Amino acid sequence: MKIVKIGGNVIDNPVSLNAFLNDFASLNDDKILVHGGGKIATQISKSLGIETQMVQGRRVTDKATLDVVTMVYAGLINKNIVATLQSIGCDAVGLSGADCGAIQAHKRQMGDIDYGFVGDVDQVNGANIKKLILADFTPVFCAITHDGQGSLLNTNADTIATEVAIAMALGTQRPTELIFCFEKNGVLSDPNDDSSVIQHINSDTYKQLLDSGVISGGMIPKLQNAFAALDRGVAKVIIASPEYITDQNTPHTEIVL
Amino acid sequence: MKIVKIGGNVIDNPVSLNAFLNDFASLNDDKILVHGGGKIATQISKSLGIETQMVQGRRVTDKATLDVVTMVYAGLINKNIVATLQSIGCDAVGLSGADCGAIQAHKRQMGDIDYGFVGDVDQVNGANIKKLILADFTPVFCAITHDGQGSLLNTNADTIATEVAIAMALGTQRPTELIFCFEKNGVLSDPNDDSSVIQHINSDTYKQLLDSGVISGGMIPKLQNAFAALDRGVAKVIIASPEYITDQNTPHTEIVL
Repeated sequence: MKIVKIGGNVIDNPVSLNAFLNDFASLNDDKILVHGGGKIATQISKSLGIETQMVQGRRVTDKATLDVVTMVYAGLINKNIVATLQSIGCDAVGLSGADCGAIQAHKRQMGDIDYGFVGDVDQVNGANIKKLILADFTPVFCAITHDGQGSLLNTNADTIATEVAIAMALGTQRPTELIFCFEKNGVLSDPNDDSSVIQHINSDTYKQLLDSGVISGGMIPKLQNAFAALDRGVAKVIIASPEYITDQNTPHTEIVL
Repeated sequence: MKIVKIGGNVIDNPVSLNAFLNDFASLNDDKILVHGGGKIATQISKSLGIETQMVQGRRVTDKATLDVVTMVYAGLINKNIVATLQSIGCDAVGLSGADCGAIQAHKRQMGDIDYGFVGDVDQVNGANIKKLILADFTPVFCAITHDGQGSLLNTNADTIATEVAIAMALGTQRPTELIFCFEKNGVLSDPNDDSSVIQHINSDTYKQLLDSGVISGGMIPKLQNAFAALDRGVAKVIIASPEYITDQNTPHTEIVL
């Protein structure tokens, strides 16, 4: 079982996205795709005259922004990905966390910062996701969850991939691999040198890399997610470029405990 | 098995929509919801500076408009309906025709009029929809289909409801009812008198009503769909207000052969 997450940089480039989707469709394993899509949402927000506000790397989601991300993530991006996968023989079903009650979250409460309609995941309905996989569908999740009381919530796509992977590892009792695909080949020891991929990161080297400032910004929550996944039953966590999907000899970073 | 279609007038009013969804969720039958959503798409198009062009009651769908209807129908409206249904105990799964390869269409070719990305339905994958129902999910379809080659298409919601009902009648061999809900209690013999609901319309009275001008505009394709459904195995077709869902004694129009 493989859970693959692709970020905005892959999605924003139609050529990269198509190449990735062809590779993803060719995987013989049971698989789940999770996608982000930040830049398009920002553009549409701007066209609609809604200002995008970011706090600590996360979008502040007022009601108008929630509507935009719901439209862009669950509508535009998700359905175009599904249509492409269907055209190349992958029986994809596009989902938000509301669909099949798959991912329930609660509105984030954190000190003085009001993130608006941003959701932190409470539970994944692994049984329902398993039903879809047993019916030979390939779930494709966007980064929208629900609170079980009728509200949609905007949720970090890395976190969704992590929580879905954990639920699948628990629910299927099968080796589950979580792959974060992004624009680099892995975590770099030198941000200016694309060939400086760190092959393995464990909790000790993570602390050193954090202290030395090699790991910073958006890579920190990604690695926190990676360790959480390993702690909670996911067999393998990889940070890599999309090429890794079909060629495991591509340089990549494996996170180990 | 009930297939219920709700139109834009129910969706545009949050109070009506919530009341309807509560009624729909309370149905004990296996059920499928199909929704339109025209007005919100028109508003968003306008905010984005895209002009909405209608030809013979159908939206002309250029690429920019296709993106808007995909965002609004498959994203904003579909996911909010699903989140509401989930909050009241209905295990809904929101779908476009691309998801599970459920509804395949082709780009409309019709004389001199270029409707753009408008799809006429070729086939419904009843087997896949049945899998979702057997897994205890309630499918909620928006009015977006795909061409099997990676393109999404904008498709009339009445037609989607009709084609899905036909596929379910064939695929499940169970009595299937198709209910078109709209803002009136049924087809009216006098458009200015809401109590003038015609109880039954058969193919003979349909011709008379057409000749006398009682039936016109958008009601014509709706009735054509209704007769097509009956011709192809659907047991019962009703045109009614949302109240009919829970109270079959509400005045309504039944279409009969």
